[in-house]
Amino acid sequence: MELRYNAQGLIPAVIQDDETDAVLMLGYMNDDTLRRTREIGQVVFWSRSRQEVWHKGATSGDYLAVRSISVDCEGNSLLVRVRMLGKAVCHTGARTCYFTDIDQVAG
Amino acid sequence: MELRYNAQGLIPAVIQDDETDAVLMLGYMNDDTLRRTREIGQVVFWSRSRQEVWHKGATSGDYLAVRSISVDCEGNSLLVRVRMLGKAVCHTGARTCYFTDIDQVAG
Repeated sequence: MELRYNAQGLIPAVIQDDETDAVLMLGYMNDDTLRRTREIGQVVFWSRSRQEVWHKGATSGDYLAVRSISVDCEGNSLLVRVRMLGKAVCHTGARTCYFTDIDQVAG
Repeated sequence: MELRYNAQGLIPAVIQDDETDAVLMLGYMNDDTLRRTREIGQVVFWSRSRQEVWHKGATSGDYLAVRSISVDCEGNSLLVRVRMLGKAVCHTGARTCYFTDIDQVAG
């Protein structure tokens, strides 16, 4: 099997807390940031909004240490289990980015 | 906050087992299949490969009953917690699609 990057050269990466099993966020990697992630053992994304390498935690200190990386059955996405080296993943300061119920979201 | 669909009108949906907290798969929804998902309380994707509505389990019987749907802090992705009405999520018959370690994947 091979990884199947999308038309932008990216693959989505689900980030899951290895201690609590909580899903923390969804990010994107390209082949370069996936290689860096594996080399340094910390999550490195490609930021789609800023169009640059995004070493998660580099500004906040909330690095994510990689415990394992799995690939789905079709090579279309990654599941990255991590240990949080800080307290938050979300830019709001929340532990996870998924704290909003869909009922609170506009149509 | 509003949902932010991508250029193809899709939003990624992380599917997590509400009983075991295992991440089962990553699928995509558009506004129509998200509405159907909420209406019937079962996961309905948009199949990118077949370009059609994909009521998960319609052929296999392995329906996914929705327990909750959360939206990330930027409205870019969904986290859908489900109860599996069958035994498998993956087309291979595996419970989860994430059973391949990245070390087994070609460069």
